Amino acid sequence: MRRQLLALAAGFALLANSLPAAAQGPALAQTPRQPTYETAAALRDKALQDDTAWKLTESLTTDIGHRLVGSPGMARAKDWAVKTFEDLGFTNIKVEEFPKPSWTRGAESASIVAPYEWSLAMIGLGGSVPTPAKGIEAEIVVFPAYADLLAAPEGSLKGKIAVVTAPMTRTLDGAGYSAAGIARRSGPSEAAKRGAVAYLVRSISTSDLRSPHTGGTSYAEGVPKIPAAAIGVPDAELIEKLAAKGPVKIKLNMASTVNEKAVAWNISGDIVGSSRPEEVIIIGGHLDSWDVGTGAIDDASGIGITTAAAKLIGDLPRHPARTIRVVMWGSEERGGSGDAFERMHRDNLANFVVASESDLGADSIYALMLPKGSVRAPQFADLPALMAPLKIMVSRDPALFGGADTSEIQAAGVPVFNLRQSALRYFDLHHSPDDTLDKVDPIQLKQNVAAWVVVLWVIADSDIDFRALAK
Amino acid sequence: MRRQLLALAAGFALLANSLPAAAQGPALAQTPRQPTYETAAALRDKALQDDTAWKLTESLTTDIGHRLVGSPGMARAKDWAVKTFEDLGFTNIKVEEFPKPSWTRGAESASIVAPYEWSLAMIGLGGSVPTPAKGIEAEIVVFPAYADLLAAPEGSLKGKIAVVTAPMTRTLDGAGYSAAGIARRSGPSEAAKRGAVAYLVRSISTSDLRSPHTGGTSYAEGVPKIPAAAIGVPDAELIEKLAAKGPVKIKLNMASTVNEKAVAWNISGDIVGSSRPEEVIIIGGHLDSWDVGTGAIDDASGIGITTAAAKLIGDLPRHPARTIRVVMWGSEERGGSGDAFERMHRDNLANFVVASESDLGADSIYALMLPKGSVRAPQFADLPALMAPLKIMVSRDPALFGGADTSEIQAAGVPVFNLRQSALRYFDLHHSPDDTLDKVDPIQLKQNVAAWVVVLWVIADSDIDFRALAK
Repeated sequence: MRRQLLALAAGFALLANSLPAAAQGPALAQTPRQPTYETAAALRDKALQDDTAWKLTESLTTDIGHRLVGSPGMARAKDWAVKTFEDLGFTNIKVEEFPKPSWTRGAESASIVAPYEWSLAMIGLGGSVPTPAKGIEAEIVVFPAYADLLAAPEGSLKGKIAVVTAPMTRTLDGAGYSAAGIARRSGPSEAAKRGAVAYLVRSISTSDLRSPHTGGTSYAEGVPKIPAAAIGVPDAELIEKLAAKGPVKIKLNMASTVNEKAVAWNISGDIVGSSRPEEVIIIGGHLDSWDVGTGAIDDASGIGITTAAAKLIGDLPRHPARTIRVVMWGSEERGGSGDAFERMHRDNLANFVVASESDLGADSIYALMLPKGSVRAPQFADLPALMAPLKIMVSRDPALFGGADTSEIQAAGVPVFNLRQSALRYFDLHHSPDDTLDKVDPIQLKQNVAAWVVVLWVIADSDIDFRALAK
Repeated sequence: MRRQLLALAAGFALLANSLPAAAQGPALAQTPRQPTYETAAALRDKALQDDTAWKLTESLTTDIGHRLVGSPGMARAKDWAVKTFEDLGFTNIKVEEFPKPSWTRGAESASIVAPYEWSLAMIGLGGSVPTPAKGIEAEIVVFPAYADLLAAPEGSLKGKIAVVTAPMTRTLDGAGYSAAGIARRSGPSEAAKRGAVAYLVRSISTSDLRSPHTGGTSYAEGVPKIPAAAIGVPDAELIEKLAAKGPVKIKLNMASTVNEKAVAWNISGDIVGSSRPEEVIIIGGHLDSWDVGTGAIDDASGIGITTAAAKLIGDLPRHPARTIRVVMWGSEERGGSGDAFERMHRDNLANFVVASESDLGADSIYALMLPKGSVRAPQFADLPALMAPLKIMVSRDPALFGGADTSEIQAAGVPVFNLRQSALRYFDLHHSPDDTLDKVDPIQLKQNVAAWVVVLWVIADSDIDFRALAK
């Protein structure tokens, strides 16, 4: 009850944008606090007034633009990352280069050609092979669910374009994405196995707008590679209606190219620990983006949030015990940068205390998920009180995922935490031309930084051993 | 108070989708009613269960597709209109052809070329001249308000591309459209007068999405005609930010063509009056649409609403006294069809009792505006009670506008009424690729038909003389 009162009081203070430096008025419980508490609360309150994350997000999207692996924008972003770390006082700045074949979109289009001509809103999937120069024109077969495609017999799509029109469900935690995304990631090869000559998928999107949503796809070994694209949500619904009335023909043209010799970079900077600098907390976002928007929510904001939080800690007169390393991963969208990161740090993984990536936009965080076994650790006793003014619960469930770019080090034994953001709006915009700066809410962005800075400080200035607690 | 109770009771019945045939239970006032009341209430309740408007909207957008003047879709739509009138029992079906030069969009694109390359979301304005084949590349001058362009001195835009980035305000009645739309309609010539070589305008839109919104523009006499296009809202905001940091160059390519010999058609069908058939009520929507969506809210739904309402009256065993004529106007978007309609009916305008067009989408009607001087006419005494279950007020303000296609007959003396719809969402979608069927809400569509059928029946089965009342 007292905790609830504290939360309520502090919540009102947050609404008024004038948080008390430490919420310990006379009517509130005089709870004994951990040594980290005062600094964590002060950092949180400072983060709510700080516009570093916004400035970084604004600069990356406005001064640099899109950052697809292999593009001039990505090369500019690499220099931007180094300069940003330098300007903000990070040290031990590293640019880790790794090979990454790049995929470049060419001219592309799709049209209904029968029963009448109609230009579809479409976008090629990342990694798709091109069509022949004259395009592919064929009758379509529509599958209202991905399972319907999997149930189609071998050979049943011979010479056809397969179209999967399954919708994506809107959920707070974004779970709809993996449920729907399989149709984008694996659909092309499943269609090709059954004889299809091309593949179209309703955009993996919670919106009802025509702007199509791209994303990576991959081809299964030993199956013909067929061109694959996403279409707008209303386009998918029109095709469903037309297909119910009679035969529909579609023409698809795609002219993508691949550069097998391209490279990408993971760039990192450190806030070096004051007493146990060899113990490193790995956080960050991904610097690369799709090519059709300016990559604001995916993932300039993640770069902004994590860099700003670490910088606030770096500005303290005393650094925390452990090192905080911000990594700007360089190829999340094009097949991952976490594998290269794991490979380059394999000899040092035991020193990585914990890892987490901010990669779900800039809307509010609603839950902190800690590594398995650690939620009741005495070092974390203050976390609920520290998070309450931000309207963030400390979940009883452990973090199962730290982010796409921390998957490989997680698999190699590095614990992860997760500051879970509202995904209610994210998949309206994700991977579409509408991933632009105006979609970032500066107030919610600050709430993110405040949450990150609290968690980072508490972990970094503790001796907590997540690996031991997980046993 | 009793009227409020009636409204409340009937409102709840509407929510439960089971309206009483006549809302005159024992606890309610036994108000004396006009002879038209019982039939009007029954028609209203039937309209709330009727899916004719939806079927017409679905068919026009799905079976026909876009309907830009001069396109194959518009020619198919003409045949669809005749067949629709025949199938629904209309008589005196007319196809009135008139000359209308057609404008056809060609390949078009716009890119920022400095400080870096970035492809803009753009759409040519209807009627724009093309660029030279090699395009136009020039530095830009940004005007955050249209008034800023008007204040720019002569010669100050020599060799430049003028960009107006003024936003549009969201309002219930859509008043933001005329305030913002002037920048689209008159901006190109105002920029050209000052020496500009091309003109870009932030989409006239209440949305924050990149899908650009087209619409007609027109050139002033004696001023060079320069290419003109709209850009996405986030594109306009990016350009503003970049222009504040330094010079910005844009390249524009547009390849539109004009066919001076094209024609358009106004198509009409009648529900012939039973006792004064020569007195005609003119209603309808416009059959033509822009080319980038399927013209669902602009204006297949208006066709569906007015045709369905008239058809419900046509199905009655006794037709009302006066004739109801549904006109499917053929060139609202490309310079109007109301002028041709006025010209062809000039000798008979005195017999046109009243006119109105449904052309603001399919969201709910919230107000009925009657012709000047008529709101207190005894023939309209029941209108508030008939409209209350639909949550529609009978406004004390007279209708000043009946629709774009009734403007010319209004100017020639035909009275107009207006069933005003919520425009809160309309200008998010209007003239954009997202004007598609999925944006039409079938429930709100039925509310529209119910409102139209009440007003039509009450006027058509009365002897009300709007011209006399207006004096």
